[in-house]
Order: sequence, then C-alpha cells, then structure tokens
Amino acid sequence: MRSAGHEGRGRPRLEQSRRPGNTAREEILDAAAELFTTIGYAGTSTRRIADAVGMRQASLYHHFATKDDILDALLAGTVDEALQFAGELLAQPGPATSRLHALVVADCSQLCGSRWNLGALYLLPELRTDRFAQFRANREELRRRYRQLAAQVIAECDGIPDADDLPFRLVESVINRRSDNEECTPETPTVIADAALRILGCHC
Amino acid sequence: MRSAGHEGRGRPRLEQSRRPGNTAREEILDAAAELFTTIGYAGTSTRRIADAVGMRQASLYHHFATKDDILDALLAGTVDEALQFAGELLAQPGPATSRLHALVVADCSQLCGSRWNLGALYLLPELRTDRFAQFRANREELRRRYRQLAAQVIAECDGIPDADDLPFRLVESVINRRSDNEECTPETPTVIADAALRILGCHC
Repeated sequence: MRSAGHEGRGRPRLEQSRRPGNTAREEILDAAAELFTTIGYAGTSTRRIADAVGMRQASLYHHFATKDDILDALLAGTVDEALQFAGELLAQPGPATSRLHALVVADCSQLCGSRWNLGALYLLPELRTDRFAQFRANREELRRRYRQLAAQVIAECDGIPDADDLPFRLVESVINRRSDNEECTPETPTVIADAALRILGCHC
Repeated sequence: MRSAGHEGRGRPRLEQSRRPGNTAREEILDAAAELFTTIGYAGTSTRRIADAVGMRQASLYHHFATKDDILDALLAGTVDEALQFAGELLAQPGPATSRLHALVVADCSQLCGSRWNLGALYLLPELRTDRFAQFRANREELRRRYRQLAAQVIAECDGIPDADDLPFRLVESVINRRSDNEECTPETPTVIADAALRILGCHC
C-alpha cells in the first residue's frame, strides 16, 4: 500500500486508504465519480468527496482547485482513449467495416467496464458552461470521427447515408443501459458493434 | 387569455401569464421543465419555479405539494402516451414490422417535439428513489413492450435475437441528440424507425 506522502504535498491523510487507485489523485477521482453518479453533481460538495477519501478538504485542493476540475478530469477519461483510437483507425488502410467495428468494441468496452457510469453525467446542464468547452469539443470530435468512419462504411456497403450518426448514438446507449441497472455482459460490445454495421445498412 | 381564477383556488397571480399552457398547472410544469433542463433539478427551488411563472410560492403548493411531484408529472408525460400506444399495437394483428415502425415514429415524434428535452432527466440519481418507483415501472413496462414487438419482428424477419432491446435504446438516443444541440428534423422519426428495423436484422 502507498501513503499520501508519495504525492509529496498536502497534509497527512486522516485515514487509511479505502479507495481503489494508486495515488491520492486517483482516489479522489474514484470517490467523486461514485458521489456524482449516485447522489448527483450539484448535491456533492468537495468536503464530502474529501470525507469519502479520508482526506482533509485542504489536501484535496492541492490536487483539484474546484469541483468542476474533478468533473472535467472524470469526463476526459470517458472519451480520450476512444478519440485517439478513432484517429488511428481513420489513418489506417483496410475495410472501414472492420475499423468501425473495432472502434465500437473498444469504446463500448470502456463505457461498460468503468467502475462508475460516468456517461450519465453527459446530460448535466452544468456541462453547457464555458468551463467544459474543451470536453464538449473532444466529445464532438469523437462523434465526428465516428461519422467519418460510418460514411466510409456506407460507401463500402452501399448503405443508408442518413444513418451515419447512429453508431455513435448506439454506443452511448450502453450508458442508459447501465443506468437502468442492466449490466453489460461480455458479449455486449460485440452485439453493439454488429448492430452498428446493420444500422448503416451493411450486410457485409 | 384565461386567469388563474379558472383554477378556483390559490391567491391571485402576481403577474400576467407569460408561459404556454391553458392552466396554472400547465404553466408550472412548463416553467419547471425549463429550469430542470437548463439549470438542473437539484439547483432549482420551488420558489424559483413560482417566480418563473409569476405566482406566489403558496399558490404553487396548491397544485404540487413538492418539487418531486412536479418532476414526476413531467416524467409521466414523456412515457404515458407511448406506453398506451405500445399496448394497443401489441393487441393488434398485422405485420410486427409495421407496428414497431409506427411505435418508433410516434415515440420519437414526442421526444423530438416536446418543448423541453425532459428525457435528459432520466439519468438523474434522484430518480432511483422510492418516490419515482411508479415512473420507473412505467418506463420499464414501455421498454418491455418495445422488446415484445421487437421479438415479433425478429421472428418475422429471421432477425438477430440479441438485438431486441436496441430499438428502445435507439429511440431514446434522440434525447442525447437534442442535448447536443442537434435538433430533430421532420425526417428524424422515420430515419430512426427505419434504423430500428435494420438493427433487428430485418430487410423487409
């Protein structure tokens, strides 16, 4: 086990670690993710997050200046990998169907496998403020890359042009599924990826 | 124009009506829907709702005892019609593809056409409390009816059995679409309905 001392700053922790995560920062993120998704963003104070980690509020502020900063870091974790993978896939040769399928499997696996269902926070009105402009731009860019790949699939399969936004929407529907307490199964990412190709009119 | 006096109770309204709605109740619902979807549920007080309608808080309480009651009435409006229509369609003869298509068009039209994007409230942690058990049960029943119709389509078309939950999810994705400031077009309900059949593996 490690102690908060690894971080090299902040006061000593009040309690033993009781959160997953290798650093105090990760523990804060985990506690905040739990509270934001179970109690709500507006109703969660940084004090409550610090209590959940077993840390003084002043120590939490050494890692994140504001609650918005914590939310922003959590949201980034839901799109950054998929965004990078989508960029790599767009630059690769080969059938677009395989590339879109791979993106959907990877993205669904991440959305299904995360400890807390953070995508449920996408619809918060708070996200429309300037503070989250960068996150919104990144998610929008991910969506644009999905559409680009989908358009290539449609061209390949002589599919349905006006369906190009639907694979992205279908992937994000695993968030609603989890919110309805229907857990993903190991098959879910493939089921969604196969469906994403059918929705584009692709029977390859 | 009508006055709050139609309601037969409550104090006189402070201001002229400035909300759509034929009754004070409808104006309260409209104001609350705007505030819940733009400021957030936790951050909206009944006082603020009353102010937005131009009504005393005491008068608001004649219509709704609590903020939760207002939210419950708004949520009911997002599923009740679709729930009834789905029940009627399940009892009808004829090809399941046509019936599922009709349900998706009707439900998407309602989700696209409502003045405020109330489905964005489905993911609120507050909805997991006992207070909203009836709403959750109604939405779950709607989902079950979608799955029943989808299963009939799959049988008809020799489609993909594990896709039976996806039409419901696809319909609700118009909520995310609206949340991303991409308005529905007049074609959206049909685009989604056609996609719902393809997703089931139906090329009829």
